[in-house]
Amino acid sequence: MALLKDDRLFPVDPGTRGIARALYDSIRDLPILSPHGHTDPRWFAEDQPFPDPAQLFVTPDHYVFRMLCSQGVALTDLGVPRADGGPTETDGRKIWRLFAAHYHLFLGTPCQLWLDHSFQHVFGIDRRLNAETADWYYDHIADCLSRPEFRPRALFKRFNIEAIATTEAATDDLRWHRMIRDSGWDGRVITAYRPDAVIDPDMPGLAQNVELLGQQTGFDTLTWAGYLDAHRARRAYFKEFGATSSDHGHPSARTEDMAQADAAALFQKALRGACTPDEADAFRGQMLTEMARMSLEDGLVLQIHPGAARNHSAQVLAQFGRDKGFDIPRRTDYVTALRPLLNAVGMRADLTVILFTLDETSYSRELAPLAGVWPCLRLGPPWWFHDSPEGMRRFREMATETAGFYNTVGFNDDTRAFCSIPARHDVARRVDCAFLADLVATGRLAEDEAAGLAHDLTYGLAKKAYRL
Amino acid sequence: MALLKDDRLFPVDPGTRGIARALYDSIRDLPILSPHGHTDPRWFAEDQPFPDPAQLFVTPDHYVFRMLCSQGVALTDLGVPRADGGPTETDGRKIWRLFAAHYHLFLGTPCQLWLDHSFQHVFGIDRRLNAETADWYYDHIADCLSRPEFRPRALFKRFNIEAIATTEAATDDLRWHRMIRDSGWDGRVITAYRPDAVIDPDMPGLAQNVELLGQQTGFDTLTWAGYLDAHRARRAYFKEFGATSSDHGHPSARTEDMAQADAAALFQKALRGACTPDEADAFRGQMLTEMARMSLEDGLVLQIHPGAARNHSAQVLAQFGRDKGFDIPRRTDYVTALRPLLNAVGMRADLTVILFTLDETSYSRELAPLAGVWPCLRLGPPWWFHDSPEGMRRFREMATETAGFYNTVGFNDDTRAFCSIPARHDVARRVDCAFLADLVATGRLAEDEAAGLAHDLTYGLAKKAYRL
Amino acid sequence: MALLKDDRLFPVDPGTRGIARALYDSIRDLPILSPHGHTDPRWFAEDQPFPDPAQLFVTPDHYVFRMLCSQGVALTDLGVPRADGGPTETDGRKIWRLFAAHYHLFLGTPCQLWLDHSFQHVFGIDRRLNAETADWYYDHIADCLSRPEFRPRALFKRFNIEAIATTEAATDDLRWHRMIRDSGWDGRVITAYRPDAVIDPDMPGLAQNVELLGQQTGFDTLTWAGYLDAHRARRAYFKEFGATSSDHGHPSARTEDMAQADAAALFQKALRGACTPDEADAFRGQMLTEMARMSLEDGLVLQIHPGAARNHSAQVLAQFGRDKGFDIPRRTDYVTALRPLLNAVGMRADLTVILFTLDETSYSRELAPLAGVWPCLRLGPPWWFHDSPEGMRRFREMATETAGFYNTVGFNDDTRAFCSIPARHDVARRVDCAFLADLVATGRLAEDEAAGLAHDLTYGLAKKAYRL
Repeated sequence: MALLKDDRLFPVDPGTRGIARALYDSIRDLPILSPHGHTDPRWFAEDQPFPDPAQLFVTPDHYVFRMLCSQGVALTDLGVPRADGGPTETDGRKIWRLFAAHYHLFLGTPCQLWLDHSFQHVFGIDRRLNAETADWYYDHIADCLSRPEFRPRALFKRFNIEAIATTEAATDDLRWHRMIRDSGWDGRVITAYRPDAVIDPDMPGLAQNVELLGQQTGFDTLTWAGYLDAHRARRAYFKEFGATSSDHGHPSARTEDMAQADAAALFQKALRGACTPDEADAFRGQMLTEMARMSLEDGLVLQIHPGAARNHSAQVLAQFGRDKGFDIPRRTDYVTALRPLLNAVGMRADLTVILFTLDETSYSRELAPLAGVWPCLRLGPPWWFHDSPEGMRRFREMATETAGFYNTVGFNDDTRAFCSIPARHDVARRVDCAFLADLVATGRLAEDEAAGLAHDLTYGLAKKAYRL
Repeated sequence: MALLKDDRLFPVDPGTRGIARALYDSIRDLPILSPHGHTDPRWFAEDQPFPDPAQLFVTPDHYVFRMLCSQGVALTDLGVPRADGGPTETDGRKIWRLFAAHYHLFLGTPCQLWLDHSFQHVFGIDRRLNAETADWYYDHIADCLSRPEFRPRALFKRFNIEAIATTEAATDDLRWHRMIRDSGWDGRVITAYRPDAVIDPDMPGLAQNVELLGQQTGFDTLTWAGYLDAHRARRAYFKEFGATSSDHGHPSARTEDMAQADAAALFQKALRGACTPDEADAFRGQMLTEMARMSLEDGLVLQIHPGAARNHSAQVLAQFGRDKGFDIPRRTDYVTALRPLLNAVGMRADLTVILFTLDETSYSRELAPLAGVWPCLRLGPPWWFHDSPEGMRRFREMATETAGFYNTVGFNDDTRAFCSIPARHDVARRVDCAFLADLVATGRLAEDEAAGLAHDLTYGLAKKAYRL
Repeated sequence: MALLKDDRLFPVDPGTRGIARALYDSIRDLPILSPHGHTDPRWFAEDQPFPDPAQLFVTPDHYVFRMLCSQGVALTDLGVPRADGGPTETDGRKIWRLFAAHYHLFLGTPCQLWLDHSFQHVFGIDRRLNAETADWYYDHIADCLSRPEFRPRALFKRFNIEAIATTEAATDDLRWHRMIRDSGWDGRVITAYRPDAVIDPDMPGLAQNVELLGQQTGFDTLTWAGYLDAHRARRAYFKEFGATSSDHGHPSARTEDMAQADAAALFQKALRGACTPDEADAFRGQMLTEMARMSLEDGLVLQIHPGAARNHSAQVLAQFGRDKGFDIPRRTDYVTALRPLLNAVGMRADLTVILFTLDETSYSRELAPLAGVWPCLRLGPPWWFHDSPEGMRRFREMATETAGFYNTVGFNDDTRAFCSIPARHDVARRVDCAFLADLVATGRLAEDEAAGLAHDLTYGLAKKAYRL
């Protein structure tokens, strides 16, 4: 018995399902473009075996451990490392058994789709995961991981990845990307410029990070002009390692276009750690506009990922650090927030700004109307909590009628869970084909138009928007 | 001709409908658990016949009379009692005829589903209600009500209710619950602790209510410590009559965790009637956290029902009082609002906090992400205006992928309309089975998994979450 | 090959589709009631041929040119007139070719449905528009336009329009409406009273506009009382030309019911151009309540169209003026905003206030609960960005269960694109029939009830709500 049904995620009406299946068959084997994500470049640099099954599927994946946490499982019992280096579970098999015993929590979630897809397609498993099969699973996966065909580069090829972008901090030395390049391996692993830690006054260590940026670039980053030049230099360095985009994860989508003297003064305040919360938000907003101006110079695509209330639990932040599943979306405005940046550079068709949201209400009210008129804007795919079959369907239903398909950019897997990449792209391809099939079946699209769109949504739009 | 179609609310695709029907058949006869609602315990204590059809279906049901009001029918013509005791219609037949003549207003609404279900299943009616059948209906129902098998306790048994919770104010003497208990009747009717009137500075008579609370408990409720002790005592008293939960209907979901000295000072201000609107909101918020702490002591489940703008019409409030259909939902934040309570006690898995909303945008943006990680949180079912087939479908579609099924708590009928209880549970069971069937048909769930979930959504989750 | 599928927009399930088709067949030929829109009365007054295809379909239609703009096409290349009278493209064929080459941008959008419907039904075209067919299309449509049966009055009859409302500024002399009336033509073209330019302190030229209003009516509009009397007189004048409604396009839904002396003082401030943004909003809000009071005197229906952030691009506003596709929806509150007006006059069933929204989240949270109880309120159809198959479906799904069908008012095409009127009404009729069919197929409505509703949604509700 297979874990996955062949026709999963297709419409239930037999006629419409047939249309969806035909569309899917025409694009299912296209290579994967992964222009935004969080895989570790070290994997591809060193090509070492992945450690045990728990380290592959449970311990590093906040999608997984947050669900177990919600039902009272302690993060230390799942091996999540403690900030103080204190004891946490290290026995992979014990972690795996705990995971398996709670696997029913994932019924009806995209996590189960991704995990079952990985189990079936990567590891050839045909039985369900539960308390009874936990040990068998653990042994089977551990055995696979010890074999050469399960090493990162082999999986990269098997996954049919044409290009994948990782995300590095502005001050990262990109050593793993250099190692990949120097190795002569032909897998295309590129970086992306993520300067939050040298921009955000609310992140710890801003001044030190900016100082390091100065050392790396030779510019005097204690001055506003030198700071901007250092960004320019660093972006150029990232471009040497394939970067085609920058990425910005701010609490809000606020942008500013203040006078340069005012920006310079605010920068000094930020370096001194003296910004009010509003000033911090303004400075981040000013930097988005500066980044957009640099994009006009160097061609990097600008990605904005706003709207998460980070570290909702102070206790979890203190004990385990950031990115531990306690980031919660909140209401996000785009209309007022983006106006300064757009009025500065938004009519330039040679600029590409890709917008993401954690607030689905913005799709039809704000994002589609904005992307449906401003030349620089494109809509990123459903993000994070909304990267799911229902989330993808809502995105298409709410954005397409106003923005069309050609102001969107295809799919991002946005993941650090390597084995989930084919699964996530497969879900997106199926949901898109289901949506297109429904348009065909309801007379809103011809079959040949749908076929062309299926190709573009899977491959063409990502390639073009991200300049891959 | 039956009023109701056997396959109502199931998916239209024949294959998917078959799956839904099979799931429904497996759970349709499970007993009803009604862990939150507003039936009158006096019914079950005295077991007197219900008065006339208008008093049963029209006059006390704000779902019904608000719709007639929206089309210009005066509330006095529907028999709604006036605050000043002035004249209102008392002729049940006249009220019923007016209702019947406007019954088409309910086309496509859940009210019609509930009413038709009551007409058919409780009263055995097979013809539609309209101006022509009004008198026949009136006579038929009136005749039924005079018979013993239509008395409250008989209907309770016929409805297959395993347990039902009513909701009483903190200062209620629970006389009817006592009378039920003393009667030796085996129907399980329990109370729930609703202390809004002794907590909310914006409700009239707070100081007197708090004074009464002191008299009832023997604590000095003019002090903060005595006030909290009185709550503890009162909660214990409610537990004697079966209470497993407290319930809190606040304008916002705000919580606070201020220093006890500050809380004590604010409490004094509240007693003096001197709170600003913001201070009143802060005091309510502080009390939610205090209630959560008491829940850790006594095991009561904490329910939060926020977000209604009460008494939108000043004129209707003056003429008819509260709860007259003029409560309107508004935008509600949970992420910032709940942070203080959650950071105080939210990691405790032995605490259960059940969240409700009138703002559906919070499902996927806030509530599912919160419940999908905080151990204490669970999501209540769609509430009030959203307790409907489309509302239930949206809830499952927007919450399940992030929170899963096991962070939800089954269904609440939340009603004072006794005859609608089987109808409402039936709607919920059908919609859930339809949702599960769609997951099966699209390969997101196996049939045996769906069957287990159908049972849990109908029975198991409510029993566990409400500790019944 | 037809451009349009016969069964477009109907449910895909064969049984449900059959129900929808039967419902649609019963109402498809009903005459068009168009109680709110922006067609030019001059067309019907002069009955001159429409100019070239580009002037008919591209250059004046912000739905169309905003999409091309979003992909980098310059508005001047589409012939959009410049505010400074500078050069813009005037060659219709060149504009048309550019439009045709980008026609794929509209795949999946309602624009394509409207355009293809016009091409097929108005111009008898059966081939797709693209770069290859651009010239053939241009020649064919241009040839049609030169013939008498394509003149405005002939199309009016062919479109089976029973009544259409245009929208004129309060100070418009209604010369074209007079000319229509004097011509003896029997087409019913009525006006609507749109006083924004004599009300809104944020619009340029308020004082001059109010002065003109005084000249037109003989009242001293520099006084508050005279200003109100002038409105009364002007509304009466508009009624002479058939007006049954006023219309108000404000940034928010705010209403006020301040003391008359305060309103008078604020009016003076507005005339002096001295209002703060908040005072400007308050004055607009006061005028909504004044307009509602006048509606109780003269019977005009009050339409409120709030929530657009106008002219998002300062550059486009400067170069091309208003209404150039850069109006973006934003979050809109109704609950707090409408309270003053509703508490002043909302219980009057002889008043009709029709609410529109650009914020779909308000449907189930605010608008349906409000319209489901306040006697004066009705819900307008999905507006602007939401006037689309998915938008209409969401409206019905989110509003019906709480407001029912009878607190809605049928369809508005709200368009200045004349040829799109039959197309837009056809989309609405199909989507409504599809929605009703789904209710029938899921046992929520009987077929005869659905048939009655289909007629009301298409014809009866608009006729009654707009007093046509």
